[in-house]
Amino acid sequence: MQYNAVPLQKLIEQFERMPGIGRKTAQRIAFYILGLPKNEAKNISSAIDEACEKIHKCSLCCNLTEDEICPICRNDKRDHSVICVVEDSQSLIAIEKTKEFSGVYHVLHGAISPLDGIGPDQLSIKELIARLGNDDVREIIIATDSDIEGEATAMYLSKLIKPFDINISRIAFGLPVGTDIQYADEVTLSRAIEGRRNM
Amino acid sequence: MQYNAVPLQKLIEQFERMPGIGRKTAQRIAFYILGLPKNEAKNISSAIDEACEKIHKCSLCCNLTEDEICPICRNDKRDHSVICVVEDSQSLIAIEKTKEFSGVYHVLHGAISPLDGIGPDQLSIKELIARLGNDDVREIIIATDSDIEGEATAMYLSKLIKPFDINISRIAFGLPVGTDIQYADEVTLSRAIEGRRNM
Repeated sequence: MQYNAVPLQKLIEQFERMPGIGRKTAQRIAFYILGLPKNEAKNISSAIDEACEKIHKCSLCCNLTEDEICPICRNDKRDHSVICVVEDSQSLIAIEKTKEFSGVYHVLHGAISPLDGIGPDQLSIKELIARLGNDDVREIIIATDSDIEGEATAMYLSKLIKPFDINISRIAFGLPVGTDIQYADEVTLSRAIEGRRNM
Repeated sequence: MQYNAVPLQKLIEQFERMPGIGRKTAQRIAFYILGLPKNEAKNISSAIDEACEKIHKCSLCCNLTEDEICPICRNDKRDHSVICVVEDSQSLIAIEKTKEFSGVYHVLHGAISPLDGIGPDQLSIKELIARLGNDDVREIIIATDSDIEGEATAMYLSKLIKPFDINISRIAFGLPVGTDIQYADEVTLSRAIEGRRNM
């Protein structure tokens, strides 16, 4: 039996499809929205419409921005000869928060994943290659995730960029800071040993 | 520093204010929405607008509905002489799912909570009293929550309804089915002893 009115049920279903939201939370959110004053509920739908309308990809690095070129690419103080390649804007923000990186970025918007039907053509790899031809790029740091798709993408990119005679690096994988070695998983530990550095 | 474009940040903030959603989930949802095809993102904002526009309170029981009178109040097969009073539509759905109750409901849309500035006037208590005068009501089952606000509301209602010479009952509180007595908290256990029934 259908316990909710149709427009309410539709709203619950929209939230249920979102990442990290189950049926119960979707219900709670829908009833929360219905309990809001009309103008505040309208603010939510307007925020969705406005974001979808104004936000698009930076024409250089493909990061999400409301400008033609994003603030990072526009920034003269950053080192435009070092490009850090990330899978998504969230990874970019995570790296920005370290305040350790002063170069620029390139956002792929995904990783190669044949099982999900995502090949190199679905990612913004063409745009990256175009930048290598135009700009005076010294180094490419590949900061894709450390899962299978991220590794496959890193391998693919490194082969693709090799002819350009640019230094290619991959961020380090090893023990997270503060970990007990006895509790580390075997794959991480073997990567940590493999990637050891002289002291 | 502001890492996200303004419209994106606004969208994240809208989701962050929702119940059960933290900063990280709000970010994930916002990026999920931006990654959707335009029409699917539009579906979400339309679902919000449509629900807020079409859903209102049933003119009898105050349950949320898209009709003037909700399907439960319209249903002739239900026993209109027994009214179950609940705090919100979610409680109503929970009771409906038991399939044990064939009467009708009255939704208060909250509970008395002086600390939050919610008094009897903010709840749909007037509408309940009006029904007692009009309809041929035999029993009121008070099914407000078992927290302080729900108990206070139940006490308030029982005093208010007493002059009407209607049978007033409160749903039973005791051990949840399947519980080990040794693990039950003291308050629940004392309510279970207090509410014991002859076998």
